[in-house]
Amino acid sequence: MDPNVHLPQVPLRKRTETLEDFNKIPAHVFPASAGRAEDGELVIAGNRVTELAERHGTAVFVMDEADFRARCRRLAAAFGGGERVHYASKAFLSRTVCRWAAEEGLALDVASHGELSVALAAGFPAERITVHGNNKSPEFIAAAVEAGVELIVIDSLEEIGRVAEAARSQGRVQDVLVRVKPGVHADTHEFIATSHEDQKFGFSLASGSAENACLTCLSTEGLRLRGLHCHVGSQVFEADGFALAADRLLGLWARLVSGGDGDGSDADRAALDILDLGGGYGIAYTPDQEALDVEEVAGDLLSRVAAKAESYGVDAPVVNVEPGRAVVGPSAVTVYRVGTVKDVHTSDDTVRRYISVDGGMSDNIRPALYQAEYDCRLANRLSTGDLVPTRVVGSHCESGDILVNDALMPDDIVPGDLLVIPATGAYCYMMSSRYNMMLRPPVVVAADGTSRVMIRRETVEDVLALENF
Amino acid sequence: MDPNVHLPQVPLRKRTETLEDFNKIPAHVFPASAGRAEDGELVIAGNRVTELAERHGTAVFVMDEADFRARCRRLAAAFGGGERVHYASKAFLSRTVCRWAAEEGLALDVASHGELSVALAAGFPAERITVHGNNKSPEFIAAAVEAGVELIVIDSLEEIGRVAEAARSQGRVQDVLVRVKPGVHADTHEFIATSHEDQKFGFSLASGSAENACLTCLSTEGLRLRGLHCHVGSQVFEADGFALAADRLLGLWARLVSGGDGDGSDADRAALDILDLGGGYGIAYTPDQEALDVEEVAGDLLSRVAAKAESYGVDAPVVNVEPGRAVVGPSAVTVYRVGTVKDVHTSDDTVRRYISVDGGMSDNIRPALYQAEYDCRLANRLSTGDLVPTRVVGSHCESGDILVNDALMPDDIVPGDLLVIPATGAYCYMMSSRYNMMLRPPVVVAADGTSRVMIRRETVEDVLALENF
Ligand SMILES: Cc1ncc(COP(=O)(O)O)c(C=O)c1O
Ligand SMILES: Cc1ncc(COP(=O)(O)O)c(C=O)c1O
Repeated sequence: MDPNVHLPQVPLRKRTETLEDFNKIPAHVFPASAGRAEDGELVIAGNRVTELAERHGTAVFVMDEADFRARCRRLAAAFGGGERVHYASKAFLSRTVCRWAAEEGLALDVASHGELSVALAAGFPAERITVHGNNKSPEFIAAAVEAGVELIVIDSLEEIGRVAEAARSQGRVQDVLVRVKPGVHADTHEFIATSHEDQKFGFSLASGSAENACLTCLSTEGLRLRGLHCHVGSQVFEADGFALAADRLLGLWARLVSGGDGDGSDADRAALDILDLGGGYGIAYTPDQEALDVEEVAGDLLSRVAAKAESYGVDAPVVNVEPGRAVVGPSAVTVYRVGTVKDVHTSDDTVRRYISVDGGMSDNIRPALYQAEYDCRLANRLSTGDLVPTRVVGSHCESGDILVNDALMPDDIVPGDLLVIPATGAYCYMMSSRYNMMLRPPVVVAADGTSRVMIRRETVEDVLALENF
Repeated sequence: MDPNVHLPQVPLRKRTETLEDFNKIPAHVFPASAGRAEDGELVIAGNRVTELAERHGTAVFVMDEADFRARCRRLAAAFGGGERVHYASKAFLSRTVCRWAAEEGLALDVASHGELSVALAAGFPAERITVHGNNKSPEFIAAAVEAGVELIVIDSLEEIGRVAEAARSQGRVQDVLVRVKPGVHADTHEFIATSHEDQKFGFSLASGSAENACLTCLSTEGLRLRGLHCHVGSQVFEADGFALAADRLLGLWARLVSGGDGDGSDADRAALDILDLGGGYGIAYTPDQEALDVEEVAGDLLSRVAAKAESYGVDAPVVNVEPGRAVVGPSAVTVYRVGTVKDVHTSDDTVRRYISVDGGMSDNIRPALYQAEYDCRLANRLSTGDLVPTRVVGSHCESGDILVNDALMPDDIVPGDLLVIPATGAYCYMMSSRYNMMLRPPVVVAADGTSRVMIRRETVEDVLALENF
């Protein structure tokens, strides 16, 4: 028996084939407020991109506040309430977005002591925070318990004892979930699928170790088991993966709730009420992709969980989810300025145009790390050129420093032009580095025709301040 | 005709096969001063690793100052003088290592405005700095000219005008090299090979565009062409690649020097004296690898350049090189503390042990980005366990967060133990991120039985200080 189900991969995007296509701003890839002004310039939440570049410099991340908030509300509505939707802060975290998420009624998922600290510094209500991590330090666990977080997700046997000890020593009972590997492997890029068996997170369902961990939690003083957690992968387009994982978890769920395992008292079991199915909803990075329809997924999942629970003769758990990318990914774009344009004869005797911009793998490692594909548009004006095979590259001293590997782009793009890459809200700034001492760009909020700095640009002084010299 | 020569790839490392092997500290992978104390604990430059961990916390980078300096001296001797060896600061840059490199008589290679700023802040002599970059901003160029850097490496046609303009407007003449793609592709991981035709750097030799760029430089007021530059790749083990690139460049060199092109005055040509062959000398990351023998490479290159120049009837240029990894890579190690140990049944019915440490892809992205292989040893004591298939993973919320993918390690490693990964001096701290708000570890200098902080650990306050809230 092979417990791993492989779901099909997303097809690679088709290229923009006409200049007309290229000049359009694809609404499902850009923030909701993005569009062209009459003169052809890109405008985001009422801000002309040339003004944003002038005021904040380039490269710059521009985040559309209204778009972020609308996605929060849409997810909350789809899943039956904001308290069910835990924004995965690893996708993008600052105190400002914590406040936005809190104001929209969402809950929060943190995956490290640092993420917890930032959330608490923002005043995010601890009783709506779920805590993740395969290797939580004792200090992290103690801080989480002390803050009064809603849930800690148990990832290893060692952690059961550590969380219980922290809770007991603080005179508390900590609510926990147990992270389960359901053996469903969402087949996007190998690096971001996290639920096949041979990986570091959680307890295997198939081997029985998940059930053992649950029984241990049930019988451990200081812990209250609230339910199960799984996460089948990220940038998932096949909703079947979520449903299948839910089905599998419900088998274990039913045994736990009905006391079929014999261990733990009925009072312990009575607290069981949550099935957390993680994040992973795919978004459109390129025009040919369609974001997963969250209303459809939510409706399907909730009715399936209800039906399955009924078939087992147990009450259905509430369903929590943890979207990160689907909340913040499409809300931001990166604006770069073109520095050099170079035609290169490739080995097969065709010419490829290289456009270098003032950023690169330091502000977006995803193309190099996951072979992620991005869209790219001319932002300061409409183009009238002819489409030529183009690669958009950064300014790093490395040939793998590629932002858009292979696109058709017009040949009238010149140094000084502004390019915009959409859907850079998730996993770009968070994974950014200072490679080549290219300092982190700012993140700017665009709202109602104005812009303000959420995170300022780094300076050489910031770097030197860390040094003893 | 295929102008690209593919050199053979390095074989994958063999595993440590016995416990005795595992307990040994392989001298060619670790800093020179590393060894075991009588009780089995790892000692670096007279510092016990438990004391380093106690004092500075974990994860922590530990850099052996004497090892760094010795590598500088060795390279300077091999290439006929420190002024020939430009330390590639992208591998690891701080004011402290700039001072070390300067004190050892080395020159410096910077690849961005930020790198230049740090070098100048360290007081590194500008007249020993070479400036790189495929997309140098006008401000960067102006700052470089104003500082009086020795050489700017011209990477595109646009740059010829930009550098000349900066020089003229400051009433100066700027010495330049022209970056050439010799069509030699050193076949390490695809992402770090930078001299095949289809990439962003420099001018193609085969197409004649390199020669055109040189002639333009020769006839451009404000510029003085000093020679040619190429870089065939990084972590190269086949010295033939360097020699072949030198051969090819010397063809163009001879035409330029002898005036066979007809352009530029004799006075212009008289300044030509430098062939810069870049960096890329491979180091041993794992015990089965052997670092490239720099004395052998240097001897071979210098005699080959002399012979080839003679065969063309021209004076031989001096040879500059730009090693980064070979200077700093083996000088540092990363010390981690074990947090959890978990046995996972892999799909093929074998068990793999997962050891989680308090760091990961934020402090070393190279395994995830380049499938780079690293060694890993138990540092606080000798092991007496049995070897089992093991994966060393970090604490990030991502299954690709792997430090050592597949090794045999003893089964007596437990939470609290210290693990050390050697050869993390180059391209680890520099490419580090704050992913998951896992803040950057410190870099500590170990020398003569003491340790001191070169770069301090980042804090949540550092992150919050960038925010408007
Ligand atoms: C446990 C968990 N929850 C939620 C997420 C968020 O995933 P996404 O941003 O794809 O929605 C992740 C991503 O790695 C995760 O590991
Ligand atoms: C132009 C140039 N010089 C030198 C280096 C340093 O290479 P290494 O660290 O492999 O010696 C690089 C690396 O990317 C480079 O691009």
